[in-house]
Amino acid sequence: MKISLKEAAQELHLNNDFHILTHKNPDGDTLGCAFGLWNILNAMGKRASVFCSDEFPDRYDFLYEGYISSAKEQGYVVSVDVADTKLLGKLAEKYDKSIDLCIDHHITNEFYAKKTFVDAKAAAACELVYLIGKEAGFSIDMMSARCLYTGISTDSGCFRYSNTTPRTHIIAADLLGYGFDFSWVNRRMFEIKTKGRILLESYLIKNIEYFAGGRSALISFPESLISSSQIKDTDFDGISSMPLQSEGVEVAITIREKASGLSKVSMRSPNKVNVSAICGLFGGGGHVNAAGCEMHGELDDIKKRIISTIENVLSSNV
Amino acid sequence: MKISLKEAAQELHLNNDFHILTHKNPDGDTLGCAFGLWNILNAMGKRASVFCSDEFPDRYDFLYEGYISSAKEQGYVVSVDVADTKLLGKLAEKYDKSIDLCIDHHITNEFYAKKTFVDAKAAAACELVYLIGKEAGFSIDMMSARCLYTGISTDSGCFRYSNTTPRTHIIAADLLGYGFDFSWVNRRMFEIKTKGRILLESYLIKNIEYFAGGRSALISFPESLISSSQIKDTDFDGISSMPLQSEGVEVAITIREKASGLSKVSMRSPNKVNVSAICGLFGGGGHVNAAGCEMHGELDDIKKRIISTIENVLSSNV
Repeated sequence: MKISLKEAAQELHLNNDFHILTHKNPDGDTLGCAFGLWNILNAMGKRASVFCSDEFPDRYDFLYEGYISSAKEQGYVVSVDVADTKLLGKLAEKYDKSIDLCIDHHITNEFYAKKTFVDAKAAAACELVYLIGKEAGFSIDMMSARCLYTGISTDSGCFRYSNTTPRTHIIAADLLGYGFDFSWVNRRMFEIKTKGRILLESYLIKNIEYFAGGRSALISFPESLISSSQIKDTDFDGISSMPLQSEGVEVAITIREKASGLSKVSMRSPNKVNVSAICGLFGGGGHVNAAGCEMHGELDDIKKRIISTIENVLSSNV
Repeated sequence: MKISLKEAAQELHLNNDFHILTHKNPDGDTLGCAFGLWNILNAMGKRASVFCSDEFPDRYDFLYEGYISSAKEQGYVVSVDVADTKLLGKLAEKYDKSIDLCIDHHITNEFYAKKTFVDAKAAAACELVYLIGKEAGFSIDMMSARCLYTGISTDSGCFRYSNTTPRTHIIAADLLGYGFDFSWVNRRMFEIKTKGRILLESYLIKNIEYFAGGRSALISFPESLISSSQIKDTDFDGISSMPLQSEGVEVAITIREKASGLSKVSMRSPNKVNVSAICGLFGGGGHVNAAGCEMHGELDDIKKRIISTIENVLSSNV
């Protein structure tokens, strides 16, 4: 059942033990929601615990500063930034059927919870946790403000992406007032790179191939590179957009060889080229500007097929 | 004479022909102010022209879309984002002594104008042009909103830097309401790179040297690289901060060889290391976290002297 902001706030008032669930492969938004909500509930004298299928990544360690699990064994279950129970990973088995409240900003939300507060216009689910906290009259402090800001900042590309709205900025203005070091958060989220990430970007810069007169750029990461080095899965976050940084590039292709004979392909376009249609030719899909597919065959062969297809598309799309 | 917001707004009301001056080597803030103000004045039926010592760079061409110079030969002179008349470049000769109003956000403003509206807490001078326009009751439209947003976004690193305040976000929230494509602006300002910039970053990634156990990183650009390739001066914007992107780096050093035997050195630190003091040892200076100096000698020799100094500083600064 879809519920209103007021009803969602009421749910927080009515309960005292909260089990907060994040999605697997947790990012800044789901963790910002979970620990932001934990801090808000904690400040109101309520008990709460945060659960995630995976370990909390080190780069977000400031979000769970001071966190202690305090909820009783049985509690009111809230999922945050989770569109589908599949995204709960290993938690699905235990919580699948018993989620009381879902707070989410995905248009694809599956309404698996007893009550769902969803707003697809929110740049981040953290915007919604903020609004619920305010509506409930709960107090926000420096710690919860920092969590909620982190989710908003990471999901909006620090207010760069088109999902940012006037409301996003108004909430950020209020959160900044709580006096945490937001420039440190942004440096940590957007600037500091792991050694693995630097290796990856360095490989990309040396090996990127331009074709179709510079209108398309392709980078392929062979399985040997991915498996043999210090590179972790999280080091790939956002890598698919990097080839778009070159002036004039209209289609960016990133290929990750998963195993011999199988590769994962991501395509990005900044504006008019419909990469979902291109990926559709290979059995994949997605959004107009961001799509993907899986392809079988040797890496060189996959590259040839993609390049030839893109050249055809771009030559009829001047 | 320092004047209030109300008085600055009054000045716009009282005049009809405006000569708007930007600083030399114009950036997003000075140009955003100039063309934002031009659009606002134009919409109010006033005449205005924008003057700059240098050509307007191509990457900001969307700011002067639709611009036509309309002011009479003699006009009311307004400088925007110009702390000191030296920064007017070639315009200084003509306008030096006749600037009626200065709108600026630098704490170092020299008060060279007849009237100065300065607020050093503003992340960008564009914040102040926005406030003056609102105070004057002038109408903002999509074009002026896009100009003012561009200045705010570029000077605050898209709301990442510590100069961002709640007011910055509140102004951005209002500007977004005018419906221009802010994500396109941000992509153009922060993501798209020229071929020269890509060459430079590629060179940096291949040649960066780490020392002091990874606590410092140094990159040097020999004169031969800078002069022989497609690299322009503007391609170096912000390059000095790039070595700080490596996890654990506390001091970043960038050396640009200007001519045989002379190099320009920039140092950056994200937090506690005082690079102004280090540059001071070599006759330079600056801020605690961003400083520079000029050094004489062969490039290799300069590098050795710097590395040895930094190692000494860091070993006594654990």
